Amino acid sequence: MSRTRIQRMSRLMAKTLREEPADAETLSHQLLVRAGYVRRTSAGIWTWLPLGKKVLDNVARVVREEMDAFGAQEVLLPALLPKDAYEESGRYEEYGDLLFRLKDRKGADYLLAPTHEEIFTQVVKDQCTSYKDLPVILYQIQTKYRDEARPRSGVLRGREFLMKDSYSFDTTDEGLAESYALHREAYRAIFARLGVDYRIVSAVSGAMGGSASEEFLAPAAAGEDTFADCPACEYAANTEAVAFKAAVPAAAAPGPVEELDTPDTPTIEALAAHLGVPASATLKNLLVKVDGEIVAVGVPGDREVDLGKLGEHLAPAEVELVTAQDFEGRPDLVRGYVGPQGLDIRYIADPRVAPGTAWVTGANKPDTHARGVVAGRDFEVDDYLDVVVVEEGDPCPACGAGLRLDRAIEVGHIFQLGRKYADVFQLDVLGRDGKPARVTMGSYGLGISRVVAALAEQTADGQGLCWPREIAPADVHVVAAGKTAQTELALRAAEQLAAAGLRVLVDERPGVSPGVKFTDAELIGVPTILVAGRRAAEDVVELKDRRTGKREELSLTDAVRALTA
Amino acid sequence: MSRTRIQRMSRLMAKTLREEPADAETLSHQLLVRAGYVRRTSAGIWTWLPLGKKVLDNVARVVREEMDAFGAQEVLLPALLPKDAYEESGRYEEYGDLLFRLKDRKGADYLLAPTHEEIFTQVVKDQCTSYKDLPVILYQIQTKYRDEARPRSGVLRGREFLMKDSYSFDTTDEGLAESYALHREAYRAIFARLGVDYRIVSAVSGAMGGSASEEFLAPAAAGEDTFADCPACEYAANTEAVAFKAAVPAAAAPGPVEELDTPDTPTIEALAAHLGVPASATLKNLLVKVDGEIVAVGVPGDREVDLGKLGEHLAPAEVELVTAQDFEGRPDLVRGYVGPQGLDIRYIADPRVAPGTAWVTGANKPDTHARGVVAGRDFEVDDYLDVVVVEEGDPCPACGAGLRLDRAIEVGHIFQLGRKYADVFQLDVLGRDGKPARVTMGSYGLGISRVVAALAEQTADGQGLCWPREIAPADVHVVAAGKTAQTELALRAAEQLAAAGLRVLVDERPGVSPGVKFTDAELIGVPTILVAGRRAAEDVVELKDRRTGKREELSLTDAVRALTA
Repeated sequence: MSRTRIQRMSRLMAKTLREEPADAETLSHQLLVRAGYVRRTSAGIWTWLPLGKKVLDNVARVVREEMDAFGAQEVLLPALLPKDAYEESGRYEEYGDLLFRLKDRKGADYLLAPTHEEIFTQVVKDQCTSYKDLPVILYQIQTKYRDEARPRSGVLRGREFLMKDSYSFDTTDEGLAESYALHREAYRAIFARLGVDYRIVSAVSGAMGGSASEEFLAPAAAGEDTFADCPACEYAANTEAVAFKAAVPAAAAPGPVEELDTPDTPTIEALAAHLGVPASATLKNLLVKVDGEIVAVGVPGDREVDLGKLGEHLAPAEVELVTAQDFEGRPDLVRGYVGPQGLDIRYIADPRVAPGTAWVTGANKPDTHARGVVAGRDFEVDDYLDVVVVEEGDPCPACGAGLRLDRAIEVGHIFQLGRKYADVFQLDVLGRDGKPARVTMGSYGLGISRVVAALAEQTADGQGLCWPREIAPADVHVVAAGKTAQTELALRAAEQLAAAGLRVLVDERPGVSPGVKFTDAELIGVPTILVAGRRAAEDVVELKDRRTGKREELSLTDAVRALTA
Repeated sequence: MSRTRIQRMSRLMAKTLREEPADAETLSHQLLVRAGYVRRTSAGIWTWLPLGKKVLDNVARVVREEMDAFGAQEVLLPALLPKDAYEESGRYEEYGDLLFRLKDRKGADYLLAPTHEEIFTQVVKDQCTSYKDLPVILYQIQTKYRDEARPRSGVLRGREFLMKDSYSFDTTDEGLAESYALHREAYRAIFARLGVDYRIVSAVSGAMGGSASEEFLAPAAAGEDTFADCPACEYAANTEAVAFKAAVPAAAAPGPVEELDTPDTPTIEALAAHLGVPASATLKNLLVKVDGEIVAVGVPGDREVDLGKLGEHLAPAEVELVTAQDFEGRPDLVRGYVGPQGLDIRYIADPRVAPGTAWVTGANKPDTHARGVVAGRDFEVDDYLDVVVVEEGDPCPACGAGLRLDRAIEVGHIFQLGRKYADVFQLDVLGRDGKPARVTMGSYGLGISRVVAALAEQTADGQGLCWPREIAPADVHVVAAGKTAQTELALRAAEQLAAAGLRVLVDERPGVSPGVKFTDAELIGVPTILVAGRRAAEDVVELKDRRTGKREELSLTDAVRALTA
């Protein structure tokens, strides 16, 4: 028995709204709610109504087919898990507030899994004993939980969401690279079939080692990620992963350090204006606490410190901003006038603060700055870390051309994990040489519910949603634009299209004007709209392409033939 | 693209075990673990391995098709819900320890939904405004959570499990009855297609009003439910729902009450032996506390009080057993010698204690009983409630024949809820008469993961699992029983069968003996086994029917033709 192929709008739980929902921050959020695809149940927690469920299922189906096609095996793991495995891996603590934690009736600790590396490792440890059992790739399409501090953008960043996560297990690095390549190809096939416009970008800084982690980003204004794209070469990376080469020191030898009386210039802007130099010639020193110890971070005055990047560099140490209290009893730290020269704390600097470069910076005295302070001469950098927020026009690390920045939605992430979890759980198999071989893993995510939002963002137009056929909730939206004759023709058209294997949404709502039905059809975004209207008596219908707006009048027979060709 | 149709055993994550898992209490638990379908992740929390996932998907597919066929609309609601709606309905408290409760990062209270009446009511309130929008039936196949005190029997009673739940919304009682009937028919179709042996039994006592709730029970020794079945008529009911007619008083007029000296007879057995009467002639009076007030419950001496039934009758009042402390300061209550005559507390009795029946019972004095105590003459019954445990041979409430009792697994439950939740959330729509009409609801459950266990229980034999074709993880299990020639033939057979549209599991594991492969094939339980063995050189294979054990030697061509006919 095939699934019912005709959905009647008169019965469909898909109430459309004319007004934007008050809390909608993004286009996809607004349209998915207005077109009756989803409803908010709680912050970051959504109900998928029938149209939304169909789109979600279509995305999941494409993902499943492409995963199966390269030999990945589908399983289903629980969402509710005892804390043990996550405590062993350290993530029970590391996740912090992002993890939903709970107790059962006996007081034992559980969590709602945000991702499943630990449990998949244990499954493979239970199932595989020899190198002959590997490689193996397992996946699931399953509900995940993350207690986001600020759930937003509708289903784009939810606290309960649907994800495909897969895990590869190999005995060699080459095997892992192959499993990774299989995923990369499958993701390309998936996003191509789904009609997602995407870029593959590096998610790790080049300095840290190649392409062991890549993100699939769908460019969209609503995106929460920013990526850098080189117009001159192939380079593309999440801005968090863009690694800069060290700056080149000025050719002219700098003179000695000179102190300047600079009252009322605690900000870079005030200082640069006062001295008549560009902000980029000044050295800004941000004080932070790393596991409680005060550390200074030096970056050119025209750049911002990316605290996320800094945190990632220093993890698992915790990074916090200093407070007024931290200056108490520290006469060496003069607020607004800190300079690295003669400062007795750890000094981290951006690679732009290269040895030999000269700066205007704080003189560690109130109302005083210093000019001609040279890195490597007047102060030492303890660690060079790439910690600045990447900006439009920054040089491409590969070719030096000015980078472009764009907003995007992360729809997939593939990652060569290596032996981290295998080490935690001592996942070994009998090797070819008869000795135990430690397994190496990859981890690969693809956000099913997020892809729905990304596609809505990328394909919508002024009239509403506009789905690619593969994931649309129906193939044809039939509108009965009139009374009895039109309704009769619309239902007949629906029957014939369904009999030919198409999925049909038919708007036969009595007492609803053609205008409202047209508006709803545009909003709902099924690729083809078939209108039974003015010429219903002659069995003539109008076919309209939702995307192009192109219209054509045809006999019903020709219309059905055209749509099923 | 169709899903890959060949699974190779050499790669499949389905490690079979020869030993029974130590904790396996039921056949399905034991076999599903041994055959590599599931693995326990935590108490009542399971991982579905590839074979198990396929069976689970097949059950879900059949359910989905039959739900869609009668116009039910699929949606997907969250599992993680704020407590508000459940607090309004009273269930946040009522569920007690069965509910998993948690807090989010802001300290707000959430729960993992055990069922979704509240939220579906809210969805319909948001979507439907007029009687024209109804009836509507919504369903989801979704993960549910219940913190069972004693999760057991593998996936039969888990704490995280997959369920189809649906909800109907109508404006009239007749509409509700129709939505109920549609579900009843769909469930019959579903269980027939799945090959489940089932009974539809009444889940409410006849005394409470007809067929407003029925259970679909799958008879199985592992079942946790007991149902009564009449061999003489159509009657069948969960034993909790069997309602007895009142007993008939004896024809002979009873004499006056006579006190008997009965030392050392605090138990019914001792008393009956001492007096030489059957236990059924004595009246047992159990003391319980109902919301703290002591109440006596009278039942014939040969029957047990079903505290569950009593609790349901008296809900939401709480029922507890009395303790020794409760007798302190109550000289009227003589432990072991309580009788209803002259007792100044509420008296509940089984319908067997009908007016005019005479009993031997306690005399409310130590070591003393009374004979000829007549209901309605010597004591009054405040409430007649059906509270005894039903026993084999009890009279059928419909025809009086002796009932049979059987164990069964509850695989479905359909229920005319009425206006309970609509009242809580004031779910009204504009009625035909222009006035607000309160909506009436039905609630319908079907345990997807539980059906897998029920089918395993019902169809397994001494060799292992034995699936009906519709839900088996494959259509054919091809065994390469030998070396190169056999493996080559097995793979060729698999290709041809897959090309013909069959789902194939092929056991081409190198270095595994034919005996182990045969044992595994029986254990895994795919309906047809194709063996490439002894006569591989001639292209002759053996077809074996897993259920009947019938074998046949055929050329590969004929075998493929026979299987795809």
